[in-house]
Amino acid sequence: MTIAKMSVAELDAFLLKEFPQAFASGDISIERADGESCLIRERFHDRMLRPGGTVSGPTLMALADVAMYVVLLSAIGPVGLAVTTNLNINFLRKGQPGQDVLAAAKLLKLGKRLAVGEVSLLSGTSPDPIAHVTATYSIPNA
Amino acid sequence: MTIAKMSVAELDAFLLKEFPQAFASGDISIERADGESCLIRERFHDRMLRPGGTVSGPTLMALADVAMYVVLLSAIGPVGLAVTTNLNINFLRKGQPGQDVLAAAKLLKLGKRLAVGEVSLLSGTSPDPIAHVTATYSIPNA
Amino acid sequence: MTIAKMSVAELDAFLLKEFPQAFASGDISIERADGESCLIRERFHDRMLRPGGTVSGPTLMALADVAMYVVLLSAIGPVGLAVTTNLNINFLRKGQPGQDVLAAAKLLKLGKRLAVGEVSLLSGTSPDPIAHVTATYSIPNA
Amino acid sequence: MTIAKMSVAELDAFLLKEFPQAFASGDISIERADGESCLIRERFHDRMLRPGGTVSGPTLMALADVAMYVVLLSAIGPVGLAVTTNLNINFLRKGQPGQDVLAAAKLLKLGKRLAVGEVSLLSGTSPDPIAHVTATYSIPNA
Repeated sequence: MTIAKMSVAELDAFLLKEFPQAFASGDISIERADGESCLIRERFHDRMLRPGGTVSGPTLMALADVAMYVVLLSAIGPVGLAVTTNLNINFLRKGQPGQDVLAAAKLLKLGKRLAVGEVSLLSGTSPDPIAHVTATYSIPNA
Repeated sequence: MTIAKMSVAELDAFLLKEFPQAFASGDISIERADGESCLIRERFHDRMLRPGGTVSGPTLMALADVAMYVVLLSAIGPVGLAVTTNLNINFLRKGQPGQDVLAAAKLLKLGKRLAVGEVSLLSGTSPDPIAHVTATYSIPNA
Repeated sequence: MTIAKMSVAELDAFLLKEFPQAFASGDISIERADGESCLIRERFHDRMLRPGGTVSGPTLMALADVAMYVVLLSAIGPVGLAVTTNLNINFLRKGQPGQDVLAAAKLLKLGKRLAVGEVSLLSGTSPDPIAHVTATYSIPNA
Repeated sequence: MTIAKMSVAELDAFLLKEFPQAFASGDISIERADGESCLIRERFHDRMLRPGGTVSGPTLMALADVAMYVVLLSAIGPVGLAVTTNLNINFLRKGQPGQDVLAAAKLLKLGKRLAVGEVSLLSGTSPDPIAHVTATYSIPNA
């Protein structure tokens, strides 16, 4: 069984320092991270919408990227220089008006140099994802 | 609950006619298809390997493409003209020597014009996927 | 030879109305759009950076998405409901400090239902792209 | 200016040994490779078609993968263990009946650990690509 290398409190502190543009607003919170998967919540706010009321693509891509980083950190500990090398997103359906967006990330592979994961983006309590992401992170040399 | 529009026997017959290059050899068989997900098996054969003994990329891409088509057919019934528009594959790890390859596909979205799904490629009985695919099919007008 | 269906001035007016969150700040401007390709500039500002000084992934994804929409509009005219269905981005290298980011988009296919394009993201005057995007837009029925 | 590390004759000999399943048939030939880009030809044969007469997806994916490997080898010299980690393909249009398929590959990035490139798949003499691929190769440690 995998043991998380960082607690949610440790992740919060690390990310507030590393990713201030994503975390300083307080809109994004880590609900769970266990070294293999994580769940991230972005509180609803009007800036996440595009005209027509759908959640904007950049909002979803940014949240998925953060979720991948959180699950990776929880698996390998505080490594500041991991960078996304590839991100593929499929936009699936509109979200529910006024609802939080959740990102459920899972590691598919944790190698020495590359980590690959997938992220389901969810709207409120609906089980049908509004978008699906796969992403690759490059891990710096130890 | 989703009801499959085609039984495994109907799928076998349809695919043998539509995809003879994949199904005529008898190496690929449908283990399950329920309108939302499916499981496909490709029996081990030497032609699926590249030097070094790993399962070749084209073998995995072809099997994932077939699995996506099977789950789509089981969801919408016999539609011969659906075509793949996008396929993204992440190669994750080597397979186990001499083992069958399995493709577990799941629909993420079934729209009127587009269907999106994901496929885990598995080697023998290992739970760790050797590759992960997301793919989009375009569905012809009714 | 392709003739653009909208001039740059028409595109500016349309996008300010449709994409206020991207265009209202005045940071993004259309340099050229000819029905087959376009060039978009995002003026440097500190908010586009992540710690370490690299241009953030969401900034690049958002700019690529805008560039794809601009080239599509210039090819088909003012259609407000086109939506991105798939976006794949490869992050390639760091940008140059303090430089504008440019997005050079090109249509690979313009079908009745789907448009596919690629976008090179460039930093300042360097010819080496900092990221490369392919994206698919779904075009609503006429 | 980039100098190719391997001539076309050296590439032919290396690939016949490393990729016998792709090169032994004599259907695939290297027309050009210069350390930054390459052009590969697959002679028309009936096995490349799927019912309806379109070039099959696996044929295009396999050819693109070979083209990426050829341009990478021409850039870094004979390295047998480079492996594809990600491949994204957009299928764009049908090919022309009975025509050869060409793959024009270009390196977008050549790093120490990762190489990223794009490949246009072409049918006969038409300038419009039938598919477009981006792919990432992982380069083993020197």
